[in-house]
Amino acid sequence: MTVTSSTTVRVRYAETDQMGVAHHANYPVWFELGRSDLMRALGVSYTEVEARGYYLMLSGLHVQYRRAARYDEELTLETTVGEVRNRRLVFSYVLRRGDELLATGTTEHVPTDKSYRVARIPEDILEKLRGA
Amino acid sequence: MTVTSSTTVRVRYAETDQMGVAHHANYPVWFELGRSDLMRALGVSYTEVEARGYYLMLSGLHVQYRRAARYDEELTLETTVGEVRNRRLVFSYVLRRGDELLATGTTEHVPTDKSYRVARIPEDILEKLRGA
Amino acid sequence: MTVTSSTTVRVRYAETDQMGVAHHANYPVWFELGRSDLMRALGVSYTEVEARGYYLMLSGLHVQYRRAARYDEELTLETTVGEVRNRRLVFSYVLRRGDELLATGTTEHVPTDKSYRVARIPEDILEKLRGA
Amino acid sequence: MTVTSSTTVRVRYAETDQMGVAHHANYPVWFELGRSDLMRALGVSYTEVEARGYYLMLSGLHVQYRRAARYDEELTLETTVGEVRNRRLVFSYVLRRGDELLATGTTEHVPTDKSYRVARIPEDILEKLRGA
Repeated sequence: MTVTSSTTVRVRYAETDQMGVAHHANYPVWFELGRSDLMRALGVSYTEVEARGYYLMLSGLHVQYRRAARYDEELTLETTVGEVRNRRLVFSYVLRRGDELLATGTTEHVPTDKSYRVARIPEDILEKLRGA
Repeated sequence: MTVTSSTTVRVRYAETDQMGVAHHANYPVWFELGRSDLMRALGVSYTEVEARGYYLMLSGLHVQYRRAARYDEELTLETTVGEVRNRRLVFSYVLRRGDELLATGTTEHVPTDKSYRVARIPEDILEKLRGA
Repeated sequence: MTVTSSTTVRVRYAETDQMGVAHHANYPVWFELGRSDLMRALGVSYTEVEARGYYLMLSGLHVQYRRAARYDEELTLETTVGEVRNRRLVFSYVLRRGDELLATGTTEHVPTDKSYRVARIPEDILEKLRGA
Repeated sequence: MTVTSSTTVRVRYAETDQMGVAHHANYPVWFELGRSDLMRALGVSYTEVEARGYYLMLSGLHVQYRRAARYDEELTLETTVGEVRNRRLVFSYVLRRGDELLATGTTEHVPTDKSYRVARIPEDILEKLRGA
């Protein structure tokens, strides 16, 4: 089963740069909003993961930018869970403005404990992330 | 005795907005760089303050913007300790591009413990902040 | 007549800092969201103001922080037009979490042309900002 | 010939998040500092490229995160020009804390004109980027 959530992102003025478009470093911030929404929808919020003693540290980030986004535009971000293993999580992202594809991306995560040591995520959390 | 430190800030591309100048929300971030440098110069770094169990929570921020800053410009930020009391600290800031005044500001801080409760800063830290 | 708009702000993970709360430099970014929403509600969006050749450059920023905001909390920002003159605009802001007051602030703006020279805003824009 | 520049990055407090480390979305901002420094060293600054009518729009971003960075740490960023073609530029990045590898990355860029249409960069700029 593939689980996807949808997040609306409105481009902030502070996110623009002197090119007149949203600066590319905002995309991973938006992806994080999508991840937050998806995890909440799956019944296991980020906040809960941290409360149980885990961080989902980023190990990889990939973004393909197709078209620029402008101030005040409303964008739609679709977030999907990819791999879910106890030492590796992958999420993928599709950003659109209406029907137009603006960007795609993936993030890879390694679960750690609060001392930043690699850790196994408990099985009940993994099951929720799998949408099971 | 007045203690002042000087910090060089180069405007980042990501800090510009579609007006073509540095976005105003970066100024408090730059002020924080100045505060970091000043405290280090006074022998009591932020990191040490936190390691000893205190936060310097912001309670007030005031900025007067005179002239805009542009991408890649090198600015000079002067940071000065104002008031130093055990429940209130004030820092002030002057931002220049060469001789030109760009902005002035102040920040007010309330010391707290790690549970965000108002706390008294130890006297030895206060003395260092006073430059005594 | 006083015109107020209400904006929901959800604290982003990227907006937190190592104190575990939203970093203070995000508040002026949130205020800008409120200003955007208020101007849109008044029938004169930022985008339109810029399209007609004007910037509303920030000349002053004041924030009083009362209580910290945490990751993923939903906050309510109320934005009000204060002064509206052809060479000076003032907006004010109240940020709450439910009934709790988190912060208040004001921003002062000077209208300029696209070369950053002080300019008079056309009367029809001023009237809309006054909610007339 | 491979051309590499070195940039010192000190982690800002505002760049940390509630995990207690630098948030991952700052890495592309730091990469941009490296790109700025490298281009300046090659005799063709970003500012000059824009003044001549071109943007180097980001088309791809890839980051591999190995170890986290903490507040106030001084990091060293090495930036290298990869591919230089008239419709595609690639830069690569290595971020270290002393001898420790923290992250590696690449950015891909498409030159455009000021209307965001793909454009050919003049040969004299390409030659400088090649370090010729």
